[in-house]
Amino acid sequence: MKKLDFWYEFASTYSYLAAMRIELLAGAAGVYVNWRPFLLGPIFKAQGMDTSPFNLFPLKGKYMWRDMVRCSEDLKLPKFLPPKTFPANPLNASRLAVSFEGEPRKEFSRAVYSAEFTEGKDISDRTTLREILQKLGRDPEESFAKASEQPVKDKLRAETEEAQKLGIFGAPNFVTADGELFWGNDRLEQALAWANKI
Amino acid sequence: MKKLDFWYEFASTYSYLAAMRIELLAGAAGVYVNWRPFLLGPIFKAQGMDTSPFNLFPLKGKYMWRDMVRCSEDLKLPKFLPPKTFPANPLNASRLAVSFEGEPRKEFSRAVYSAEFTEGKDISDRTTLREILQKLGRDPEESFAKASEQPVKDKLRAETEEAQKLGIFGAPNFVTADGELFWGNDRLEQALAWANKI
Repeated sequence: MKKLDFWYEFASTYSYLAAMRIELLAGAAGVYVNWRPFLLGPIFKAQGMDTSPFNLFPLKGKYMWRDMVRCSEDLKLPKFLPPKTFPANPLNASRLAVSFEGEPRKEFSRAVYSAEFTEGKDISDRTTLREILQKLGRDPEESFAKASEQPVKDKLRAETEEAQKLGIFGAPNFVTADGELFWGNDRLEQALAWANKI
Repeated sequence: MKKLDFWYEFASTYSYLAAMRIELLAGAAGVYVNWRPFLLGPIFKAQGMDTSPFNLFPLKGKYMWRDMVRCSEDLKLPKFLPPKTFPANPLNASRLAVSFEGEPRKEFSRAVYSAEFTEGKDISDRTTLREILQKLGRDPEESFAKASEQPVKDKLRAETEEAQKLGIFGAPNFVTADGELFWGNDRLEQALAWANKI
């Protein structure tokens, strides 16, 4: 089966949009999606940025918040409601996501995004994550324990390093089996077409 | 008739893509497009940038050049061939564009973009602009003289100031009659839908 790597970051607004629509589009295109969470922090730092470009460039940030409202409406997602702190610290959610595989990772990731961008919750907060895990029928303390094991931490670090090697500079990204990098939720359709062509 | 303002910059790669497809899409949507050239230089400076973000952030720049090749193919445009110097100084081309109105401005602008991004020509060079004007059946020296008149210079400066007032931070942009700002070639369809809805 054709395959597409979906590189996403939990603080990233446009990763949220991609996460909510990628399975439907990929399913229709007959493409399997491999969800790969990573951290933008080290990637922004390597480019000389100590926070999101949406904070560093306020006009761009202001536009992005408006764009998210419009795009959420267009995609018929719930009303967009961002958290008070942006970008959220994605570390805890990312380690949890890495500790799951396949469908459970996808399900968990979408639930994190919904809490963050439709309920305005702080996803760095264990209370938020606990609620999400409970709703998914998982034992929160057991999940937290597993997510803090060294192999999980190492895996997330290795994934972030691989993202850097791929030339990734933002999120979300879609990477095809032949190494083509597509950046941004707006490139999802193009990436799926590419995955199907090769 | 419904109306959409198209704010574009001659050095901007994604403005080129928008310029080559906007009339076809707008025509199908029954929307009149008002082409408004402006200068990004002062707008980048106000954000603390002394050149294009694609130069300031090399990974993003490298990605953009690859994206342009792919997007040009997808849009069935001629093979993408950028100029040696990026961003090109857009001042002369912008003043010429401002000195024309309506269809002649659109025709001239598309010809400038084609020379810049499919022939790799330097659009700050009078030789390039002279060739373009000749091909369009215009007298180059007469056009240059008109473009260097004070009202034309003032008009371009005023347009750039209005772009700043609208919150514009990059290019291209589409602005609807009710003041909604859509940034980027990828938002053209959404902007046309909005223009039709209001």
